[in-house]
Amino acid sequence: MNIINVWEKLAWNQGGNIVYIILDGVGGIPDPEKGKTELQVAHTPNLDRLAKQSSCGLLEIVGPGITPGSGPGHLTLFGYDALQYKIGRGILSALGIEFDLQPGDVAARVNFATMKADGTIADRRAGRIETQLNQRLSEKINQNVSLEFEGEYFFKTVSEHRAVFVLRGTELGGQLQDTDPQKTGLQPHGLQPQSQADQKTAQLVESFIKQVNQLLSDEYPANTILMRGFDCYNPLISLEERFKLKGVCIADYPMYRGVSRLVGMDVLPRPGGMKERFQALKSCYGKDYNFYFLHVKHSDSRGEDKNFEGKVNVLEEVDQLMPIVTRLNPDVLVVTADHSTPAVMGKHSWHPVPVMIKAKTARVDSVTTFDEYACMNGSLGLRSGLQLMGLALAHGERLKKYGA
Amino acid sequence: MNIINVWEKLAWNQGGNIVYIILDGVGGIPDPEKGKTELQVAHTPNLDRLAKQSSCGLLEIVGPGITPGSGPGHLTLFGYDALQYKIGRGILSALGIEFDLQPGDVAARVNFATMKADGTIADRRAGRIETQLNQRLSEKINQNVSLEFEGEYFFKTVSEHRAVFVLRGTELGGQLQDTDPQKTGLQPHGLQPQSQADQKTAQLVESFIKQVNQLLSDEYPANTILMRGFDCYNPLISLEERFKLKGVCIADYPMYRGVSRLVGMDVLPRPGGMKERFQALKSCYGKDYNFYFLHVKHSDSRGEDKNFEGKVNVLEEVDQLMPIVTRLNPDVLVVTADHSTPAVMGKHSWHPVPVMIKAKTARVDSVTTFDEYACMNGSLGLRSGLQLMGLALAHGERLKKYGA
Repeated sequence: MNIINVWEKLAWNQGGNIVYIILDGVGGIPDPEKGKTELQVAHTPNLDRLAKQSSCGLLEIVGPGITPGSGPGHLTLFGYDALQYKIGRGILSALGIEFDLQPGDVAARVNFATMKADGTIADRRAGRIETQLNQRLSEKINQNVSLEFEGEYFFKTVSEHRAVFVLRGTELGGQLQDTDPQKTGLQPHGLQPQSQADQKTAQLVESFIKQVNQLLSDEYPANTILMRGFDCYNPLISLEERFKLKGVCIADYPMYRGVSRLVGMDVLPRPGGMKERFQALKSCYGKDYNFYFLHVKHSDSRGEDKNFEGKVNVLEEVDQLMPIVTRLNPDVLVVTADHSTPAVMGKHSWHPVPVMIKAKTARVDSVTTFDEYACMNGSLGLRSGLQLMGLALAHGERLKKYGA
Repeated sequence: MNIINVWEKLAWNQGGNIVYIILDGVGGIPDPEKGKTELQVAHTPNLDRLAKQSSCGLLEIVGPGITPGSGPGHLTLFGYDALQYKIGRGILSALGIEFDLQPGDVAARVNFATMKADGTIADRRAGRIETQLNQRLSEKINQNVSLEFEGEYFFKTVSEHRAVFVLRGTELGGQLQDTDPQKTGLQPHGLQPQSQADQKTAQLVESFIKQVNQLLSDEYPANTILMRGFDCYNPLISLEERFKLKGVCIADYPMYRGVSRLVGMDVLPRPGGMKERFQALKSCYGKDYNFYFLHVKHSDSRGEDKNFEGKVNVLEEVDQLMPIVTRLNPDVLVVTADHSTPAVMGKHSWHPVPVMIKAKTARVDSVTTFDEYACMNGSLGLRSGLQLMGLALAHGERLKKYGA
């Protein structure tokens, strides 16, 4: 029995409210010129005040050297071992647009893309077409492409060049390779089915792509589609079943809404902005839930854009909104990230993320600012990201004593 | 193979003496007014001097967020994975009164309690009756209650309202639910036997309780009994078999004496006081044993009483006795706890406990005081409590080299 199963056994449906403020990609590394990380440069008096009242530390989200995607990163924070619970990106995208996935559905992410006459990909995102065009093309596909089998398919716009493809039928395998070659100048990859069930799916997907290519042949630049992240949907055992947590997600971006649904959380209607998310938290706090997950996306986006100052600005913007949360005085308030996205690197990274836990029972330490270096000296130490949920439950007095 | 099995393979019967001074529940969190923990407030020059000569650190006893009971806490310190070795409280209580448990015995903890005419429990402890009354009632039960089967039962006073019930026979199951409803105003629970062997035990226990209720009907307030912590006794593989340690326990409280017997340690006659325990350690040191476990109870008791100053006083009292230990100059001297019991919380908690290891081979660090914060900067870092035994064995030069 591992420690996570022990939390499951000890969790009871009493105790305090837990609030997670997840600053996506917040961890950084020092900018070579400034000698400081984004968090160190940002003026964040509210986050720093919170650090002074919290147990601080660092989380190595999935494991040493592992750069988590958003799915594994968030699952880990929610107490789901990302090495055990593997969710294809297609599933997450489908959940993220509130698509009502059924067990056994196979889903994939889709990009509209530009294919040259020689069959190679010229642009993996078709010049990031507008959502409106995406909608027209999706409509065209839905009206013209048909698959002959005992089930049905769904093709749904996400935004810009992104869409979702879902196959619903019986005995469909979900272990297919991405057709997206990840580089321009290459032809799409084959699906490489492994099992008979995968083979069935592969034939349907191949037929689908072939029909789409014919249908879109005059739709330059969006004249083809690329698929990736195939997976078969099986809902996870919920946060409520595992940890007696009735959770609610407050997020604007599909991915995070999707992960939340996957673990059985309710998902608030899109607040439509950062301030609106904080206000939505305030509005729903203390009512039907005991676990509140608020997601901040742009700290990650600016990091991915290599926009150091932009990321600093996002952090300062979050800081100004933090009093909305602290005035709620949650029993357990956690601020952390699902992974680092150093602006210096312009992508997700494996670096540990700072974390702080404010609670009556917190062993408040000497950390006075919320950043990657200050938190090194915190009382939580450097630990696996998977341990966060156990600590949050403990501080919420939501775990019984182990043994007598 | 996990690391504990490696210690087992590498342990040899040579090397130095290991002394564990276990300050039960010693870890705390800061008192909101004082801004300091019990250990930080206490004047402990001897413990602090020891910290200066030791490797210091923090132990997360069973795991992150897990609040250990005394049994799992101590098993962990002795190198027994508490997630693997689960011992019912009945077994621990029986061992604690030196009851000579045989393999296959089923034991439960008993409370004398007060039942109202409607069958609900008015007081789970019968007003904490005096030990003397408990003894008279136990005598009455032993003389009047009989069970018709091929074995026998034992009913023994522990102290105040506490007793132990043991069934000895063949093919008795030990997986029964507590009858203790844990709250007043409720009727006792049923035993919910799962297997045929449990069913056999359940019938005997039900008959026993029925007879006791009739017998004690005029014995207000102690007119019934509640049972909990049923378990079947199977001795653990001993410290000597596993780690080549011949251990001795110096403790006054039943629970700790019980856990020690369970892992094959000898248990000294009750010293009858804290100073007497330290003197008993001195008297037996270096003779028949190479592992000495001295237990200090009141640091936990004062914590559970929410008595911050009382806990501080216990720590200062221990400090004054520490020279008795240090003058023995043990090869390995460990000071730590089985869990935290912050006076602020008034109960066991999951917070890491400070630890120090003094040995010739210790990598002495810059820690100059023995407390939860100072030890954060120690050379042992923050680690699982289960790792302590391996480190103690290593510093005792009681582990061979691994591989060539």
